[in-house]
Amino acid sequence: MNPEDLLSRIRVVLCRPSHPGNIGAAARAMKTMGLSDLHLVAPRSFPDAEADARATGAVDVLQAAKVHADLPAALAGVRLAIALSARRRDLGPPVGDVRAMAAQALVEAAAGEVALVFGNETVGLSNDEVLCCQAAVSIPAKPEFSSLNLGAAVQILCYELRMAAFDAAPPTPDFRATPFASPTATVEEVEGLYAHLEAVALASGFLNPAQPGRLMPKLRRLFARARPERDEINILRGLLAATQQPTGHGRKR
Amino acid sequence: MNPEDLLSRIRVVLCRPSHPGNIGAAARAMKTMGLSDLHLVAPRSFPDAEADARATGAVDVLQAAKVHADLPAALAGVRLAIALSARRRDLGPPVGDVRAMAAQALVEAAAGEVALVFGNETVGLSNDEVLCCQAAVSIPAKPEFSSLNLGAAVQILCYELRMAAFDAAPPTPDFRATPFASPTATVEEVEGLYAHLEAVALASGFLNPAQPGRLMPKLRRLFARARPERDEINILRGLLAATQQPTGHGRKR
Repeated sequence: MNPEDLLSRIRVVLCRPSHPGNIGAAARAMKTMGLSDLHLVAPRSFPDAEADARATGAVDVLQAAKVHADLPAALAGVRLAIALSARRRDLGPPVGDVRAMAAQALVEAAAGEVALVFGNETVGLSNDEVLCCQAAVSIPAKPEFSSLNLGAAVQILCYELRMAAFDAAPPTPDFRATPFASPTATVEEVEGLYAHLEAVALASGFLNPAQPGRLMPKLRRLFARARPERDEINILRGLLAATQQPTGHGRKR
Repeated sequence: MNPEDLLSRIRVVLCRPSHPGNIGAAARAMKTMGLSDLHLVAPRSFPDAEADARATGAVDVLQAAKVHADLPAALAGVRLAIALSARRRDLGPPVGDVRAMAAQALVEAAAGEVALVFGNETVGLSNDEVLCCQAAVSIPAKPEFSSLNLGAAVQILCYELRMAAFDAAPPTPDFRATPFASPTATVEEVEGLYAHLEAVALASGFLNPAQPGRLMPKLRRLFARARPERDEINILRGLLAATQQPTGHGRKR
């Protein structure tokens, strides 16, 4: 099953959300990561203009959201429900870490529907709600201030699911293949630059051949790190050549 | 250097944020992951009640935030500035992925200050701003809908930094050590349960010794998966014993 199909089998369930804006933020967070199946348990206000505003381009996720009276109804047909738990509980399933749980969720999604279950902004999930879930996960926030915004928590879990679905390498636009880029320079081209640099350094008096110090090795180290492109070599050599002209401003007279 | 100290050396720079609410959301996202050094370049409105509202418990981060006229001023003293880039650019540093960049940022933080640089909500970073940065990073969102909320983007980057700082295992409250938990049962205790189950199954007529089928292996498989605790064994055996009493409701008569 392809990664996008696996992600489409993972629903997000928000239990008793108080702030419609957070419902919109959750919808947007889901859509950026390829999830779209949103379920709401007893939302305080939904639909709501504030939810639409925060969803921006993900209003379609809100429009397709299903509203339920209680969590068991929202989990109908699900084979694994994972509760987000921010605090210690006496009962409930053991709490795993996000990255490991995302990997497990994807494995389960190959066999059926999976749910991520989030609690109310202020009180979280009730014990009864946690007991409806077969697994629990905790976001490793700083223990002294572990209160993530609901939309932010949905964003992290959906991000880890997308990373897991694509083996940590989701496709992105090919940022490196810009129209501006030219091929990496060959060794000969780079050596041509070094020779040119050295000639200018000598002719200008900046490099004393009797005491060369480490100037050339240092320049080699710099350009080796930068892995210059052919166009960049040409720009640098053009600049060097310009300094060698009798009228060049950079020439030592 | 300990992980929390490394995280404290990473500043978040928001360039020209339009919505004060997003400044508050960014502050909260930072604090949940152990970051606290917030810099703002030409914010439309700051301080602002909306920023305070969305920051909730992270108003201290807002109060300590520094406001600058331009990005170079916000990057003073920084040894590595990493731009968040959501789109293809003709210029600027090569764009890496979040997880790899987080690891690199932590290495750099051991030697000095590091900055994460975020653009305006609508137009992102300008080309000039990107060229002030030595590295760039992209969040691997779904290419067809890659527009993350600013606070959500800050949350993901700070989360990956925290994960990197703690080698993917940040400390969390010990969720497993609940007052409710008891020691894992010994093999003998679990075998005692199986013997008890079998005795009840036989006495009740549910298990026919002439045709035992796979009842006991299936029960063993179930409880092996569950790794019962001592108290749970005791509860189950108490229940079984109750069914064996003459007055037990579960007894076959």
